Amino acid sequence: MTNANSFYRPRSGLDLLEKTADDPRERERAVLESFARIEEVEPEVRAMTAVAQREAALTSAAGATGPLAGIPIAVKDIFDTSDLVTGYGSPIYAGYQPKSDAAIVTLLRRNGGIVIGKTVTSEFAYMTPPVTRNPCDLTRTPGGSSSGSAAAVAAGIVPFAIGTQTGGSTIRPASFCGIAGYKPTLGMLPTVGMKCFSWSFDTVGLFGAGVRDVAFFAQALSGRSLALGGVTAGPVFGVPDSYPWTAPSANASDALDTAVRAIEQAGGRVRRVRFAPWMAELVAAHDTIQSYEAYQSLGFEYDHHRVDLSPMLAGFLDRAARVDTATYIKACVLAEQAKARLAELFDGITGLLTPSAPDEAPEGHASTGDPAFNRNWTLLGCPCVNVPGLRGARGAPIGVQVICRPWDDARCLDTAAFAEQAIAAAVRRFPAT
Amino acid sequence: MTNANSFYRPRSGLDLLEKTADDPRERERAVLESFARIEEVEPEVRAMTAVAQREAALTSAAGATGPLAGIPIAVKDIFDTSDLVTGYGSPIYAGYQPKSDAAIVTLLRRNGGIVIGKTVTSEFAYMTPPVTRNPCDLTRTPGGSSSGSAAAVAAGIVPFAIGTQTGGSTIRPASFCGIAGYKPTLGMLPTVGMKCFSWSFDTVGLFGAGVRDVAFFAQALSGRSLALGGVTAGPVFGVPDSYPWTAPSANASDALDTAVRAIEQAGGRVRRVRFAPWMAELVAAHDTIQSYEAYQSLGFEYDHHRVDLSPMLAGFLDRAARVDTATYIKACVLAEQAKARLAELFDGITGLLTPSAPDEAPEGHASTGDPAFNRNWTLLGCPCVNVPGLRGARGAPIGVQVICRPWDDARCLDTAAFAEQAIAAAVRRFPAT
Repeated sequence: MTNANSFYRPRSGLDLLEKTADDPRERERAVLESFARIEEVEPEVRAMTAVAQREAALTSAAGATGPLAGIPIAVKDIFDTSDLVTGYGSPIYAGYQPKSDAAIVTLLRRNGGIVIGKTVTSEFAYMTPPVTRNPCDLTRTPGGSSSGSAAAVAAGIVPFAIGTQTGGSTIRPASFCGIAGYKPTLGMLPTVGMKCFSWSFDTVGLFGAGVRDVAFFAQALSGRSLALGGVTAGPVFGVPDSYPWTAPSANASDALDTAVRAIEQAGGRVRRVRFAPWMAELVAAHDTIQSYEAYQSLGFEYDHHRVDLSPMLAGFLDRAARVDTATYIKACVLAEQAKARLAELFDGITGLLTPSAPDEAPEGHASTGDPAFNRNWTLLGCPCVNVPGLRGARGAPIGVQVICRPWDDARCLDTAAFAEQAIAAAVRRFPAT
Repeated sequence: MTNANSFYRPRSGLDLLEKTADDPRERERAVLESFARIEEVEPEVRAMTAVAQREAALTSAAGATGPLAGIPIAVKDIFDTSDLVTGYGSPIYAGYQPKSDAAIVTLLRRNGGIVIGKTVTSEFAYMTPPVTRNPCDLTRTPGGSSSGSAAAVAAGIVPFAIGTQTGGSTIRPASFCGIAGYKPTLGMLPTVGMKCFSWSFDTVGLFGAGVRDVAFFAQALSGRSLALGGVTAGPVFGVPDSYPWTAPSANASDALDTAVRAIEQAGGRVRRVRFAPWMAELVAAHDTIQSYEAYQSLGFEYDHHRVDLSPMLAGFLDRAARVDTATYIKACVLAEQAKARLAELFDGITGLLTPSAPDEAPEGHASTGDPAFNRNWTLLGCPCVNVPGLRGARGAPIGVQVICRPWDDARCLDTAAFAEQAIAAAVRRFPAT
């Protein structure tokens, strides 16, 4: 980054693990580094809502076992934690102390990870901008709703963080913050103990410095074999010729073109693909389903604490209240039919390659950006990876997204790693890229 | 019931609504009747874990509006309530007061219903028998895990109650207690704010005196049009020639034969059908998916409060811990493929007709009975209705089950109502049936 007020300094979790795996003192050091980095950057970045007790974290780290032994990890404050207050980004839950850990927190702890703190989420993981600033450029949004998790990884507070995606809440902030973001197949990681927004779409998302980091993180949490490099030889990327939602900016199109050239130079193949008409219908279906479900999921808060909702969320729920059940069911059936036709979409390609967002991070903090390039894949349950490495014309990171079939997560990560390496090689050759 | 110690006295919610709809005093009377009935039966039946404050309930009832205005309703204690302690059937959560209402409780209150109390659930909605006794015969189990909700409706404490089904926790207790039980299409009613056991299977279930009662209740909660009588003329019932799970007892086979004759006498048609081999594979898939998900959903309790789990649940989770992720994903993919082939299963029939359980309620309280006849339909997301009206050879109720395609709920309820009327007519003709 060239920006003077940049706090961008992601740390690779895999590199850290090489040091910490067999050395309790290195694990303590890694935890201390997180605390130190919080002190350095937090006054400006504002990624955290709660920080673990230092002595307890050091003791846990020293004695930790498992693939994530002693690694400091941050968790979006939309997940319950039994030992840290959990506010869901809303004043309604200020100071709330859940009784138990969310299932993803249990998985993290079972595998040796140390919960170093909770990260800022936009209110109930919707789109009202929270306080967090983009570590690459403090005058910009980090994206949302996993604002603090993306910022905490980009600023090097932690090598790994947990977020969620219901529309574009993982892939978009990863793109804006210049890190890897991974939304696994719907249902691969548990959302139990997460404050629900839309039960059909809510998905756990993961952040790391690079694609190989998030792949390792996902393997450690899920128990799936997601090791890179063995799955996909000679990937074929499908690049859509147009999109039935927000058009990409010239900036995003340029980044995608750069990625395409880099991939071809690295020996990958690229094919143009055209979406079937049902892809356009899914855009409305996502809105219908998310609205109907959020009006029920946040029903208690809407009915009893409306005054404590942001105007943006209250307005959304006012509109959501008008979606009737017949319309909702029609949208659910359409979504099921689309899932049954996914094979057509991926016919002859390893995965899709698209922009991760319509542009680099918007300037200012009035919006968390547009999730248009993410919503349909969340609805379809497809694994998606934000590939970092490029910058936009205005100097901030801009990502490209690899999308594969549901449960094809290993291939998706492998294909994204191919693109990441190709892009890194191109950037080395042409630093102005 | 002939049994001397019977507390069986279900009240029709629709009949009650005729009186209460326009009369605040009748609404208060309905609430008072619930409180009175709790005092009468609760020392023996033990259906309730918490009861609402009387004055508050009366005030709410008098001022209520909506299709369920003033109707007293009981809610399984696996759902969060902001004003009643919620224990999930476990000493780990004794006295726990959630911050908010589960979404189904919000729907209930939005439509005018009065939460009269919480009902006994087996521990975390698994199979460890709780304290509740069958109102038809106190020496028997009411079934589980929605033990208290089924018993509360059967004993006339409330006309409607809310339960859940992950294996067979609604249809089986409805069958054992001689009332209507309805498990809607997966996802039709929200599980947000329910203590999760298995996110792929957990489904809200409804109890009422008869099929027309649960149809009305479901319509009021969901906003779907589920009115009876207009959907299905001349239903065709498919009766399987055998089952790839527990065989039905002679008792259950006799009840099914009686139902078949009654349906034919009423002008319905019955066809024999044969399950495809994948139906057998789903039995193992259900076990795999439920085990894997429960070990994550109850991970906090297993890891930190194992001593407070029942031996039955702890043993289940010990085994569940050994299900690996690859096996889980294979089972998920198999389930998706089976859902895509559901059209074959329902080809040429309106719905399936099977026993609701392998037998009438087992004697004693050492088991909540066998959910074998329910698990696959829960996995497939099919709507299911327990049709009451018959008794087994040992004098207790025994239900038959109508099963339809996902989202075909109106047809399922209508077809079940046809069967219910046919059975009632047959019982009137031959009271010994």
